[in-house]
Amino acid sequence: MTQQHDGLLSQDQALPRPDLTPSDRLYWQEEGRCSQARAGWLHTRHGRVPTPTFMPVGTVGTVKGMTADAVRATGAGVVLGNTYHLMLRPGADRVQKLGGLHRMMDWPGPILTDSGGFQVMSLGPLRKMDEDGVTFRSHIDGSSHRLTPEISTDIQFKLDATISMAFDECPALPATKERLEESMERSMRWAARSREAFTPRPGYGQFGIVQGGTEQDLRARSVKALTEIGFEGYAIGGLAVGEGQELMFSTLDFTTPLLPQDKPRYLMGVGTPDDLLGSVMRGCDMFDCVMPSRAGRTARAYTDRGPLNLRNARFAEDTRPLTPHEDGPLARTSRAYLHHLFRANEMLGPMLLTWHNLAYYQRLMRRIRAAIMNGTLEALAEQLRADWAQGDWSPEEWPLPHYS
Amino acid sequence: MTQQHDGLLSQDQALPRPDLTPSDRLYWQEEGRCSQARAGWLHTRHGRVPTPTFMPVGTVGTVKGMTADAVRATGAGVVLGNTYHLMLRPGADRVQKLGGLHRMMDWPGPILTDSGGFQVMSLGPLRKMDEDGVTFRSHIDGSSHRLTPEISTDIQFKLDATISMAFDECPALPATKERLEESMERSMRWAARSREAFTPRPGYGQFGIVQGGTEQDLRARSVKALTEIGFEGYAIGGLAVGEGQELMFSTLDFTTPLLPQDKPRYLMGVGTPDDLLGSVMRGCDMFDCVMPSRAGRTARAYTDRGPLNLRNARFAEDTRPLTPHEDGPLARTSRAYLHHLFRANEMLGPMLLTWHNLAYYQRLMRRIRAAIMNGTLEALAEQLRADWAQGDWSPEEWPLPHYS
Ligand SMILES: [Zn+2]
Ligand SMILES: [Zn+2]
Repeated sequence: MTQQHDGLLSQDQALPRPDLTPSDRLYWQEEGRCSQARAGWLHTRHGRVPTPTFMPVGTVGTVKGMTADAVRATGAGVVLGNTYHLMLRPGADRVQKLGGLHRMMDWPGPILTDSGGFQVMSLGPLRKMDEDGVTFRSHIDGSSHRLTPEISTDIQFKLDATISMAFDECPALPATKERLEESMERSMRWAARSREAFTPRPGYGQFGIVQGGTEQDLRARSVKALTEIGFEGYAIGGLAVGEGQELMFSTLDFTTPLLPQDKPRYLMGVGTPDDLLGSVMRGCDMFDCVMPSRAGRTARAYTDRGPLNLRNARFAEDTRPLTPHEDGPLARTSRAYLHHLFRANEMLGPMLLTWHNLAYYQRLMRRIRAAIMNGTLEALAEQLRADWAQGDWSPEEWPLPHYS
Repeated sequence: MTQQHDGLLSQDQALPRPDLTPSDRLYWQEEGRCSQARAGWLHTRHGRVPTPTFMPVGTVGTVKGMTADAVRATGAGVVLGNTYHLMLRPGADRVQKLGGLHRMMDWPGPILTDSGGFQVMSLGPLRKMDEDGVTFRSHIDGSSHRLTPEISTDIQFKLDATISMAFDECPALPATKERLEESMERSMRWAARSREAFTPRPGYGQFGIVQGGTEQDLRARSVKALTEIGFEGYAIGGLAVGEGQELMFSTLDFTTPLLPQDKPRYLMGVGTPDDLLGSVMRGCDMFDCVMPSRAGRTARAYTDRGPLNLRNARFAEDTRPLTPHEDGPLARTSRAYLHHLFRANEMLGPMLLTWHNLAYYQRLMRRIRAAIMNGTLEALAEQLRADWAQGDWSPEEWPLPHYS
């Protein structure tokens, strides 16, 4: 696949060797369990990743404000790409010419791409759906495009996604049960077509997406349809769309037990640190959300003591790092400096705070994983929740360095 | 000076040990020479720096779009801060409370601050000058402020500048000789007051600024006045303000020979790679300019084959790195990806291209310095100019990697 000219100093990126045999598809292996929560390894063509894992979102082929080196430094395993954005710019054929998304964005690790379905559905009047697929207008230049299960799967192939997602429909909640059922059934027909269009390759995989809103019987029928088709993993879609944490958790409570025990489970579009904790405890392994990166661009830092807004004047002379647990450049960055950077609208503010938030999410997942392995997840959860509720470290608890 | 509480995990930055005795001021030592060009070392409280050196501009306490680690990785030795911007936000007293600019911006190396004079002068109707100093309104909130030689020097002390600049006036060119003379003489009176206000500390220094436009006799009188006062280094101001390269070079031709041989010479606000080369060959040691960082934010890359505009459509499928000589993340970044990032208005485009340009400037200075040491500067200059004129590497000369 890679035919390279022996040009003067031409540089190529070595892709990591997979620890799987040529015949293996992408697979997940359980390593530990604590009640419903699972610790495991996701084995892929582009390396193996410990789960549970949070996947930073790299919409148009970049995690906003982060070099790929910085994303790696946080410990992230999988990065997301968006079919909708990438098919419009720079285009799937172009990404393929550039050697795929891994080479293009300097991310040799696993990449998961969404199917474009969710984003196209949210275009509202710009899109028109039929049984075969969706026609829509680009938000960039108004040009007309079409996505079907086959086209979406082909685009994800061209992007060289390690994990492709089945093309589905995701209705906004609340929705009538009739609407949910109709939509879920169409998504299942589309899932079968997506699977048909998928080209199996060693270490690559495709996930089906369970739909059915908050309706137990619809979720069960969706799981049955997908497992009969058979995928390398199963995503839970149609949540985190406004239903609230309680309803999301209760839906997970009856959905994850229906899923195969030996396949990875990806809860799409979730969430806050507390959402992640509760969802891991309900048996989910993989997560993505724009929240930590978007919050980083708007001066909001996630910490073990809950979120901090760095624009707040109380940070103007706070010489402490964001938290007592920083590493990398954040270990040498004061809250006062971050406050100054955001006040002065300097790019470095969003850059550093995105870094912090993604690092915080990765650190949180590592702690959760270790607790699963140790059988102490309940205790960790209690402690995390108590800490989040407690609020910022007081100067008595954690004194400020004084320099004058 | 640093009194630190022994707080829970409180983190402090170790400042590097200077390689000078406690009684030494900042000094410069010649190591080699090639015609007028000098190679040397600048010894400071915050480490030693090989010269000639290009100093990236960190206006409000950050080199835009770069972490301090990234600036370090380019090999930069000295970073600039701006008195005008920092006195307005976050304020000199606050920077002092935060432990000085080094701690605040995570740059333990030498920092040079301008005096604020140049920027205040360019405020136009927002400022009013008298013999004692300048009153002006903030461009941020319209509040009224005052700068005098004493106030500027005090602010630079509070910022903890390794190198402070004398407060001066810099008239725009072209100007009448009468105006230039009047301005130069006032600047010399202000230089004496700045020196009086300067607090000597081991490894710190203050530079006087030679004025006088393009007039030989005025420049000579200015040098005489400043050397009679005595500074740790001498800057050449009032150039790169629209007079053109030819007039700038001819002014340097008669100005640098007047300056002390054993002191560093800083040409302010310069310039393009070709400007730097010509100015080093005329005996200048230190430079600053917003050009490489500003160009990086607007898709313009400096290379050995002249500037490239990454927004240009011809880069859309160019799988080569920017040049055959990249390192760091740029070694794994294609022109096509940079083109995509700028087209999509992604922060990572300015981040990576600023990095590239600052790295290019540092690499250029290292090559120039090595050629001075080897006595081959003339040959290097010829080669550099021929290469810059040649334009981008052709695909025949440097083939593109093909991936499909
Ligand atoms: Zn989300
Ligand atoms: Zn300049």
